[in-house]
Amino acid sequence: MNNPKKRRVFKKKVQEEINVKHLADQLIKGDRGALSKCITMIESHARHHRQTANDLIQLILPYTGDSVRVGITGVPGAGKSTWIEAFGKTAVSKHHKTAVLAVDPSSSLSGGSILGDKTRMEFLAHHPDVFIRPSPSSGTLGGVARMTRETILLCEAAGYDLILVETVGVGQSEGIVRGMTDFFLLLSLTGAGDELQGMKKGIMELVDAIVINKADGANKEQAIKTMHDYNQILRFITPATKGWKPRAYTCSALYNEGINDVWDVVFGFVEETKNTGEFDKRRSRQSVDWMNQLIQIKLNETFFDDQKKLQLKNLEEKVGRGELSPSEAADLLFD
Amino acid sequence: MNNPKKRRVFKKKVQEEINVKHLADQLIKGDRGALSKCITMIESHARHHRQTANDLIQLILPYTGDSVRVGITGVPGAGKSTWIEAFGKTAVSKHHKTAVLAVDPSSSLSGGSILGDKTRMEFLAHHPDVFIRPSPSSGTLGGVARMTRETILLCEAAGYDLILVETVGVGQSEGIVRGMTDFFLLLSLTGAGDELQGMKKGIMELVDAIVINKADGANKEQAIKTMHDYNQILRFITPATKGWKPRAYTCSALYNEGINDVWDVVFGFVEETKNTGEFDKRRSRQSVDWMNQLIQIKLNETFFDDQKKLQLKNLEEKVGRGELSPSEAADLLFD
Repeated sequence: MNNPKKRRVFKKKVQEEINVKHLADQLIKGDRGALSKCITMIESHARHHRQTANDLIQLILPYTGDSVRVGITGVPGAGKSTWIEAFGKTAVSKHHKTAVLAVDPSSSLSGGSILGDKTRMEFLAHHPDVFIRPSPSSGTLGGVARMTRETILLCEAAGYDLILVETVGVGQSEGIVRGMTDFFLLLSLTGAGDELQGMKKGIMELVDAIVINKADGANKEQAIKTMHDYNQILRFITPATKGWKPRAYTCSALYNEGINDVWDVVFGFVEETKNTGEFDKRRSRQSVDWMNQLIQIKLNETFFDDQKKLQLKNLEEKVGRGELSPSEAADLLFD
Repeated sequence: MNNPKKRRVFKKKVQEEINVKHLADQLIKGDRGALSKCITMIESHARHHRQTANDLIQLILPYTGDSVRVGITGVPGAGKSTWIEAFGKTAVSKHHKTAVLAVDPSSSLSGGSILGDKTRMEFLAHHPDVFIRPSPSSGTLGGVARMTRETILLCEAAGYDLILVETVGVGQSEGIVRGMTDFFLLLSLTGAGDELQGMKKGIMELVDAIVINKADGANKEQAIKTMHDYNQILRFITPATKGWKPRAYTCSALYNEGINDVWDVVFGFVEETKNTGEFDKRRSRQSVDWMNQLIQIKLNETFFDDQKKLQLKNLEEKVGRGELSPSEAADLLFD
């Protein structure tokens, strides 16, 4: 320790450990400022921060898990913000501390974000028991998923016991949100009558419930018809959650109609799956799956340097044109 | 070259190249013995054979691709063997050289094989224009998939222009067969009336057609009802092939009814997708996907030695119990 540089590095490391410990303590007390700071640290890309972030998560891990995690998806225009506002209102009236997060794959391209426009959630945005955080605005979808998963843990450690994760459902984002939530809900609309057609591949097999929003006024009758259509299809789909039969419901978030019914469905689901053990099993499975995904990401990051990426692109072209067999091409990459 | 050992290795290598070249020539002439020999080489696990197999595939690659590849799945009892016998009969009557292969994930466990019982395909088993090969009986599902893909290429080089790939649909095998075929067909049954329920996850989104077999006698009426039910659901599913609307049909393989109609559907599909370019695009995409899968397999094989496998198992347990965060666990594996 006589080397001054070594001493500085050591001192810095000790200081950081103290800071992380302090931050974790503040977080567990429910300090909003600490929560924001922690999320910022999680979202930081620096390799150095990554280790600090891991230390932080490990420290708070014993304080996590005691929440209900609800994923919400739906096309733009389905009224997700209004619906979350209504559902969140119900939550706070029942004394649930509520966190609203988002996985927005488009934000990494556009820099924009679904939850950017907080004016659509005026009530929640100003409520002391509600924490709203837009989607991380950069990085790969895998990176965004990692940050959101860890943000869920941070929110739980800070005492939030209802976590709503919204996604607009572009690309793989629905599967990713399904993989980090207990209950997954599709918010749908009624319209021209054939609104069920061209539905996104595989979405029906991810959901625990479908909610047809804007079932009000002249729309109501058609919404009920759409609900029946969905229920017909759901009969033929293997349920996403063992032992649970997903069903369709109607509601009007704007007029606060049917929101309480959906609430009862979600919390009925939680009670039932906790009784059967499926709730904990899914959580455990999700963590292990997530670890394995991270391993695959790391493995690929390590292997594919710039040269290998270029080589892969060339090989893909040759294989695509039928000049090279996939087997031979794969072997060439490892030579 | 004065070292006798080096000379022997060199001589052996030259001899092998000559043999592979000779084998490829025989194969391209349509020699059945050569085809069997080639498949055995492909199925050999030895690392040394793997390189020879790659050389062989690369040699015959220019002679491949000129076939229609049809995947067929269905639960045990759906009558796959009888159906393939009937469909194959139609094929040879139209002067198509037909190869029947299988991807049977269970065979790697049981050592058995779907096509083991050739007595169910008595006509095809003895026809000179038909080549039947059971599923490779060992190895991982990824390994079985690789062998079957390469066997398709070998059959094509040998002049077979209709390739039927059967699978019983356990685990991931349907997705794997979909990924190596042009047209994918679900063979289904009718029965108690609720036969559509509990259908395998995602199967409807893979198919180009559903054929309800055993639509004969007292069964016929119910089969037609099942067909309508399937058609209802198919309306709401994003088609597996761009621009193609999958539909359900009835047939009786036993009484050879409706087989010709299915034939027309398959070859109508081929004509249409060749016109739109979707046929070639899918083939090209399938090859590139396959290369990328092989890369992932190799990457994991290289990384996960016995020690790493053991470490992973321990980490999975800790993460599953919530003692370790997925992030921290993934990092530990790379330390």
